Amino acid sequence: MQNCLVTGCAGFIGSHITDYLLNRNFSVIGIDNLSTGREKFLENNIDNKQFTFINEDLLNYNKIHKYFKDISIVYHLSANADVRFGFNHPKKDIDQNILVTSNVLEAMKHNEVKKIIFSSTGSVYGEHKTIPTPEDAGFPIQTSLYATSKIACEGLITSYCNAYDMQSWIFRFVSIIGERYQHGHIYDFFKQLQSNPDQLHILGDGHQKKSYLYINDCLNAIDQALNFYNEKNNIINLGYDGYCEINESAKWITECLNLNPELTYSGQKRGWVGDNPFIHLDVTKISKTGWRPECTIENGVRKTVKYLSENKWLFE
Amino acid sequence: MQNCLVTGCAGFIGSHITDYLLNRNFSVIGIDNLSTGREKFLENNIDNKQFTFINEDLLNYNKIHKYFKDISIVYHLSANADVRFGFNHPKKDIDQNILVTSNVLEAMKHNEVKKIIFSSTGSVYGEHKTIPTPEDAGFPIQTSLYATSKIACEGLITSYCNAYDMQSWIFRFVSIIGERYQHGHIYDFFKQLQSNPDQLHILGDGHQKKSYLYINDCLNAIDQALNFYNEKNNIINLGYDGYCEINESAKWITECLNLNPELTYSGQKRGWVGDNPFIHLDVTKISKTGWRPECTIENGVRKTVKYLSENKWLFE
Repeated sequence: MQNCLVTGCAGFIGSHITDYLLNRNFSVIGIDNLSTGREKFLENNIDNKQFTFINEDLLNYNKIHKYFKDISIVYHLSANADVRFGFNHPKKDIDQNILVTSNVLEAMKHNEVKKIIFSSTGSVYGEHKTIPTPEDAGFPIQTSLYATSKIACEGLITSYCNAYDMQSWIFRFVSIIGERYQHGHIYDFFKQLQSNPDQLHILGDGHQKKSYLYINDCLNAIDQALNFYNEKNNIINLGYDGYCEINESAKWITECLNLNPELTYSGQKRGWVGDNPFIHLDVTKISKTGWRPECTIENGVRKTVKYLSENKWLFE
Repeated sequence: MQNCLVTGCAGFIGSHITDYLLNRNFSVIGIDNLSTGREKFLENNIDNKQFTFINEDLLNYNKIHKYFKDISIVYHLSANADVRFGFNHPKKDIDQNILVTSNVLEAMKHNEVKKIIFSSTGSVYGEHKTIPTPEDAGFPIQTSLYATSKIACEGLITSYCNAYDMQSWIFRFVSIIGERYQHGHIYDFFKQLQSNPDQLHILGDGHQKKSYLYINDCLNAIDQALNFYNEKNNIINLGYDGYCEINESAKWITECLNLNPELTYSGQKRGWVGDNPFIHLDVTKISKTGWRPECTIENGVRKTVKYLSENKWLFE
């Protein structure tokens, strides 16, 4: 019997991982303070006796460390995932990502939990000159507070693993899309088109190239990587071996919604400060496990729009 | 007239930089809370009208931001510089290094200060497979909380520079030695030999290879780099193109003190958790400025021992 702990269990990826683990008959303690997580994402599991939901802030170490007792693996998904508005609240990434991860690691150390799965980000590569970007690409220069905080979390995790005989699987995700997605350009475009179906304003010139991965493919990749890689620290890119332009994605979104809005652009190469105009990760390492994504970027975008159309409560 | 602000102005490197700037007739505001800094390091300058000393904690943003008004360049030297005991107080590096750097950058942003010099560390390369290690070596894996915090500071700085038209010179130092040195293996060995001249216990097997740079060479290198490199973010290794074994350094130290202690070893390859058994930075980039160190590692160690011998108050 594996006892798992999922931080951010009510978030987009965290709730899917919670489902995934419970479906395998593992027991799960899920911690979330519902700051961006949604109780609705947990409603299928809340009566499951294998699941314990703890509504608590991970910044509050004294309240959370006891839940790490007898846990065999921690899925640390809790994070401030907002890249775009980092400079509006410069302490948020430090608190929600770095300090929370420090608390998680201390709780693991004191309870002798040996394994951690962590959701890092492909944006730790900054605007790298090597594209597609492999895990061991040259020392990157950070361009956002979000990626900076994630690279700090990675460093905390690998340092603890070296010091305390722990083991990590650190996944550098591209943007994940699919059911329960509630943040990012598809969400923003959808919201705009809800309030004005005749116009869609795009940040940047629309030619930003981005890679997206569908949530089910993401979950399968994590599972494959855990079975395949067994180093002390396993750092693995998770992305789709390809990309789309934001303009293409806008076309798919408007097609799904049967709309034909006028497109306007803010015009620069980057949509906002810290926006990376070309994200494409080298996925050779995860591919060695035999994993292949089943869903194309286009289909992932279309599934996401379908989900948003059926779940307009997300915009309330 | 250049108005400079030096954080950590009463520390080892910060106080030397303060001297250096005042000797050039720049005006200097120095901030230090004297937690590890020493008032004695400032005594030559305290009556200098070009110098203003602020005894304040940089964590206290509301108390410090006003001092950044009309500053043209910030030398950000304040830090928790303790690598070895990081895991004893896992929040200290986050507070003293990451949060303080965030405050410094916010204060710079609000006061439109455009230039920052930052003391990072060669330990951000972890135990890199490429030795000597260049600035653009492959994405490193962190092994200490100290280096993790410094890489986070680097990321905050480069992100702010991208966002707010600021410019950085980030120096990845090897250990700096010389007058006012008060922390590291020479200090530890000296202290041991003070209390027992007949025995010296060395952490590790004594074969750890380390590079050291003498403080005056460090100051000259910073000055050269500022004149020579003018990118948005200038990231530069600062070290000596060579290294010594800890055993050699122990020999120089005991020779200086006319002692012949029995040497004992804790025995492992690493002196402590996170100790890097081989530090040697590639200094090609700083050498392009024409800079060359004038002091060998051996002479730097000998000067440091002489200083400690003449300043035993440091051990009180």
